[in-house]
Amino acid sequence: MNQNYITADPWQIIEDGFNPQRVESSESLFSIGNGAMGQRANFEETYSGTSFQGSYIAGVYYPDKTKVGWWKNGYPEYFAKVLNAPNWIGIKVTINGTILDLNTCSAIHHFKRILNMKEGWLKRTFRATLPNNIEVEVTSLRFLSLAHDELGAIRYQVTPINSNAKIKFEPYLDAGIKNQDSNWDDAFWKIKSISSEGKNAFIEAETMKTGFNICTFMHYNTFLNGELLELPSATHQTDTIVAQSVELSVHKGDAFTIEKMGGYTVDRNHGTAVRSAAQNILQTASDLGFERLLDAQKQSWAEIWNMADITIEGDVKAQQAIRFNIFQLNQTYLGTDPQLNIGPKGFTGEKYGGSTYWDTEAYCLPFYMATKPPQVAKNLLEYRFKHLNKAIENAEKLGFNTGAALYPMVTMNGEECHNEWEITFEEIHRNGAIAFAIYNYERYTGDRSYTQDKGIFVLIAIARFWLQRFNFSEEKQQYVMLGVTGPNEYENNVNNNFYTNYIAKWCMEFMLEKLHQIKATDSQNFNSILIESKLSESEIDTMKTMVESIYLPYSNTHEVYLQQDGFLDKTLIPAAKLTPEERPINQHWSWDRILRSPYIKQADTLQAFYFFEDHFSLDSLEKHFDFYEPLTVHESSLSPCVHSIQAAKLGRMDQAYNLYLRTARLDLDDYNCEVHEGLHITSMAGTWMSIVEGFGGMRIKNNNLHFNPQIPKQWQSYSFKVIFRNHVVKVNVQHDGVSFEVSGDKSLELYINNKLLRVEPNIELTV
Amino acid sequence: MNQNYITADPWQIIEDGFNPQRVESSESLFSIGNGAMGQRANFEETYSGTSFQGSYIAGVYYPDKTKVGWWKNGYPEYFAKVLNAPNWIGIKVTINGTILDLNTCSAIHHFKRILNMKEGWLKRTFRATLPNNIEVEVTSLRFLSLAHDELGAIRYQVTPINSNAKIKFEPYLDAGIKNQDSNWDDAFWKIKSISSEGKNAFIEAETMKTGFNICTFMHYNTFLNGELLELPSATHQTDTIVAQSVELSVHKGDAFTIEKMGGYTVDRNHGTAVRSAAQNILQTASDLGFERLLDAQKQSWAEIWNMADITIEGDVKAQQAIRFNIFQLNQTYLGTDPQLNIGPKGFTGEKYGGSTYWDTEAYCLPFYMATKPPQVAKNLLEYRFKHLNKAIENAEKLGFNTGAALYPMVTMNGEECHNEWEITFEEIHRNGAIAFAIYNYERYTGDRSYTQDKGIFVLIAIARFWLQRFNFSEEKQQYVMLGVTGPNEYENNVNNNFYTNYIAKWCMEFMLEKLHQIKATDSQNFNSILIESKLSESEIDTMKTMVESIYLPYSNTHEVYLQQDGFLDKTLIPAAKLTPEERPINQHWSWDRILRSPYIKQADTLQAFYFFEDHFSLDSLEKHFDFYEPLTVHESSLSPCVHSIQAAKLGRMDQAYNLYLRTARLDLDDYNCEVHEGLHITSMAGTWMSIVEGFGGMRIKNNNLHFNPQIPKQWQSYSFKVIFRNHVVKVNVQHDGVSFEVSGDKSLELYINNKLLRVEPNIELTV
Repeated sequence: MNQNYITADPWQIIEDGFNPQRVESSESLFSIGNGAMGQRANFEETYSGTSFQGSYIAGVYYPDKTKVGWWKNGYPEYFAKVLNAPNWIGIKVTINGTILDLNTCSAIHHFKRILNMKEGWLKRTFRATLPNNIEVEVTSLRFLSLAHDELGAIRYQVTPINSNAKIKFEPYLDAGIKNQDSNWDDAFWKIKSISSEGKNAFIEAETMKTGFNICTFMHYNTFLNGELLELPSATHQTDTIVAQSVELSVHKGDAFTIEKMGGYTVDRNHGTAVRSAAQNILQTASDLGFERLLDAQKQSWAEIWNMADITIEGDVKAQQAIRFNIFQLNQTYLGTDPQLNIGPKGFTGEKYGGSTYWDTEAYCLPFYMATKPPQVAKNLLEYRFKHLNKAIENAEKLGFNTGAALYPMVTMNGEECHNEWEITFEEIHRNGAIAFAIYNYERYTGDRSYTQDKGIFVLIAIARFWLQRFNFSEEKQQYVMLGVTGPNEYENNVNNNFYTNYIAKWCMEFMLEKLHQIKATDSQNFNSILIESKLSESEIDTMKTMVESIYLPYSNTHEVYLQQDGFLDKTLIPAAKLTPEERPINQHWSWDRILRSPYIKQADTLQAFYFFEDHFSLDSLEKHFDFYEPLTVHESSLSPCVHSIQAAKLGRMDQAYNLYLRTARLDLDDYNCEVHEGLHITSMAGTWMSIVEGFGGMRIKNNNLHFNPQIPKQWQSYSFKVIFRNHVVKVNVQHDGVSFEVSGDKSLELYINNKLLRVEPNIELTV
Repeated sequence: MNQNYITADPWQIIEDGFNPQRVESSESLFSIGNGAMGQRANFEETYSGTSFQGSYIAGVYYPDKTKVGWWKNGYPEYFAKVLNAPNWIGIKVTINGTILDLNTCSAIHHFKRILNMKEGWLKRTFRATLPNNIEVEVTSLRFLSLAHDELGAIRYQVTPINSNAKIKFEPYLDAGIKNQDSNWDDAFWKIKSISSEGKNAFIEAETMKTGFNICTFMHYNTFLNGELLELPSATHQTDTIVAQSVELSVHKGDAFTIEKMGGYTVDRNHGTAVRSAAQNILQTASDLGFERLLDAQKQSWAEIWNMADITIEGDVKAQQAIRFNIFQLNQTYLGTDPQLNIGPKGFTGEKYGGSTYWDTEAYCLPFYMATKPPQVAKNLLEYRFKHLNKAIENAEKLGFNTGAALYPMVTMNGEECHNEWEITFEEIHRNGAIAFAIYNYERYTGDRSYTQDKGIFVLIAIARFWLQRFNFSEEKQQYVMLGVTGPNEYENNVNNNFYTNYIAKWCMEFMLEKLHQIKATDSQNFNSILIESKLSESEIDTMKTMVESIYLPYSNTHEVYLQQDGFLDKTLIPAAKLTPEERPINQHWSWDRILRSPYIKQADTLQAFYFFEDHFSLDSLEKHFDFYEPLTVHESSLSPCVHSIQAAKLGRMDQAYNLYLRTARLDLDDYNCEVHEGLHITSMAGTWMSIVEGFGGMRIKNNNLHFNPQIPKQWQSYSFKVIFRNHVVKVNVQHDGVSFEVSGDKSLELYINNKLLRVEPNIELTV
């Protein structure tokens, strides 16, 4: 834990008091988004202190390149950078000729930020004394509309406190923004037109190289003590900025307010008509007005929370954290646009330039399956199905053939868009997670149709990839897999990564099983699948032989599977012996030293024990957990949740609880010293799993819901809801028992601690 | 062998006939250079066909970047790109209003290029019929002066053949050039001024980011049938180009000639006065005139050849090849400027952006030791000594301490300027070659003063690096080295690379030996070395323990040291089984597939057998050669020479000869299908070694020269000269014996086939 300034509150993220050191962290933590766009919590008014300006539009990226003589065959053509988009929130505020800027004010009092997660808005209030000694009270309220996802709204109010004052508002659009990760401070936007009409302004700009066309727009109104004003305005324009300014002499104690609406229209939705689309959305915004938009926002979030909320009694920090995680997941991805996916940093930073990682399948899918209608999870699966041909092309570039598929590690459109060979070529276990998601979806929803119609083609292509990727070792007389990177990215290009070998074997087995099932139930479909996929008997036979003879590295001394060949050559000093100054090691150690160390970034061997829990005994889990957990530094956000679930399973509730806090409050408490760069969105689904699968012990077995509820001693109770096969099941766990509420049209059989229970709809059952 | 169009000739590289497909290859092969600058053999006149324009200035580079969120600690700030410099050779030729352009001519006859290696000039002649049916005969002669290394000269002559014609020459400078490896076709030069004075023109330009200031300049004169003309001229200027044009109506059969002088002055030599320096050098050029400059050029090359020439009788292709190699080495580096070094592509292409690789120490040093005064080799050693502090900083960035040094893999100024972690962090064996060069220099020259004064500090810093880089494996109960890349770059991040472990062990042993020697002979110096380097007794003791217990991977089955742990898990199919379509694999296979393959890019385990020949038995060499040679694809230019030397040692002269041809004619015959990208300069020193150390069997042992001469059956005789400790020894090898000529002031003891001989000065001795 590296920071502790967020006030605990069940529904709100609160910062009290202004501290310039925290500005960038808070810009991340108070980020807002609506699935189509999002922004860091930058101030509307001028801020000359250190800040990380960031506003992002879903699906809009820049293809960066590094051409060098030593480029290798198969390297991606480009790597994607998520693009910092034009700023539409800016309002320059001048008071008696002096610019309001918290970095230059002589005094700042009562500074407070609130991110209201229940209703989906961000508020900031403060009193500041300007260098000219005028004291003002400022309130700003901002949200990005869920109902109209191209639109955001701001209400910004200034009240002079100690004297009358001439106040000027200059709402503006600024397309002169740059990425922090720009190589040489290059610009990524080409401005096509800047225009202003009445209280509206527009900037049409195109992203360089990718040529995405975006219209950034705004509209404003001003009020004095709530009464609409019609003030004369002036327009100012530069090469990159359009601003409109209005000025008013305000009496001491009177509130001068500007309401600004703004946002983006993108060519993905509107073709070339982005500017007229912007006009339309501004008309809608103007017709509805700020209050009705805000009401709609509250309504939208109420609907989300109705299904997704998890309550925790007796531990307000844990409560705040889980809601923060659920809130951010919903700000990032709502499942409504099947072209989009879940970026690891959402709309809160630039790191991880691509939109889709294996995080989606391995971590996010369970959350969306349990809290959204099944179509959302299916959209996520279909996203990969649509990219199957690109994944086949990607594998072909690497020398695979006959329809073997390697899904990209990072993608925007199905193409690989990451630029490290040790990741793109070698972190191939991602294929496994994509197959596992198909299994997981079928297991959870009971819907076999997706697998039979579409998923089977993905499974065949992935199994084929593994078939070609193993080679037979004369030395070991088994199949080995050389040159991979496991989930633990603190090792690269290793041989026989246990996790990868294991999931690869499973993929082939699962595909063979599904094929067998389809053959048994629908031989016509089976035949057409064989024809379409050109899957040959000999491929099937070789796979059957291969899965019987896959090498898995094992230590007899330690009685554990080894993460990879040679792991025991490392000096195995527990991570607890590292000094605090060395942590996180990825910020203090060179990459070279990290690679040679025994430290594990995230669950790797244990990830296999998580996915394939039923394949291993509890005793074996315990041995592996005790071997690997002390070496795991959890510097991937995706790590503590898996360990928390396993600690809970081993009945180590204190450890499970600590690991839960680490995943749940990863960003709020900034465990990895990097929250200023943005939030860890995809791992937030892991937090949800820590409660539902960890403490709640939820599993799906043989088409039934199982629970093994435990409760951390720090909590009085907790509850969560899941949608399970046309039922909504609410689980309330207390120290003296667990109760269930089911809605749906039928009774539901479920297991608690392996005992079968029948729960009737709308009747609460306590055990 | 992928091409066969170069006419065999003992002293010349000749291309007969024009073929647009060969333009880029020939631009590489006919490159000229003078150690300070160099250029591809681009045409002076317009050429609209496919061409790779390239002109390069020693030490002038661009620091490219790739900022991404996933950048790791310790990654270099930038990587260097060698910069394509402004073009000063261009002469636009217009004949009766039509541009002379070989790509548009209706007929081209008698096209011939000659690179005269003996005298150091490039000549081109052809007859061409333009689209307007005018036929002209063209001759161009060009050289870069060795005597005045900022200067080049061109004599370009056009004779109308079938009618009178109005001929316009437009000599120009063009600074609007770009690199082929520019990421997005970006420009790398910022033009500061363009000017023209009489027959002179200048462009001052600055490289972006690095801010090198360069003045590109030219001067011209015109002649009719050899008589100087004073024609009226016009100047044309654009943002990037300055041209002067002269026009003349020429009678059929008359020769209209332009002599153009040009080149670069750089701020490394002239500070801010690059333009006035350019004026001075043009004045010199003008005073001397073309003929005298050309005479001086012939003289300079005669002096080089006097020492460096190798003659081969009976095999003109082999003769041509060895001279081509020696010629190109001398075009690249002459040892006169201690700030410069030997770039792997010299001045012939963009690939390998940096100037200095381990190639210098591992491959080039023996050539320069044997063919130049000792100061040249010493300059090369001192280059590294001067960079010692940067090498220590480089190691510190990676977490090493107390003065451990890691020399950069690629450098311009002592800083690492390559951008692949698997190379920069892991291909650490380069440290070994740098230590070995100190040993090699001392062994060859007998000069211990460099080691005692300067080299010992380099040795201590390198030994310290290895001391910290090994770790103790509990599993193996020996010291292991994890996560390295050996000389075989077709594997990355391997454990216990035999070559690296072995040379690291040797570095520590050699440093301890040198220290012991200094202690015994000069205890005062010894003490001051300990004080200055802060080398502790405990470091020395730990090193002594460590060198006794270094793990070296070994296979009892195969009786060979293994290139690395896990090597036998690969599918060991000999490279001979690959189809021709797959070769070279680095152009046809993905990087992923290469990494997993058993194929070896260049001598790796065998490189240790080359450096440390005396440590291994002939029987062991044979076993290793037979194990590794079939798996070696020689796709590094540095590979066949080592194998050739070893084949010769094993008495396999046919194999040695074939490997010799492969290294000697690597570029002329384009074995690796990449000559269009530029030449492989540093490996050319390996070609020299193949003859002198391979066939000639030259070794230095106990301060004596040893020879074990053999001769390929294809040759009648060969001869080479070496400078050895104030003697020049010429060795003539024939099938029936070997003869020696020695110049110097004393007789020389040398060994032939291990038998001691005494050779008197200036008396030939035949054995």
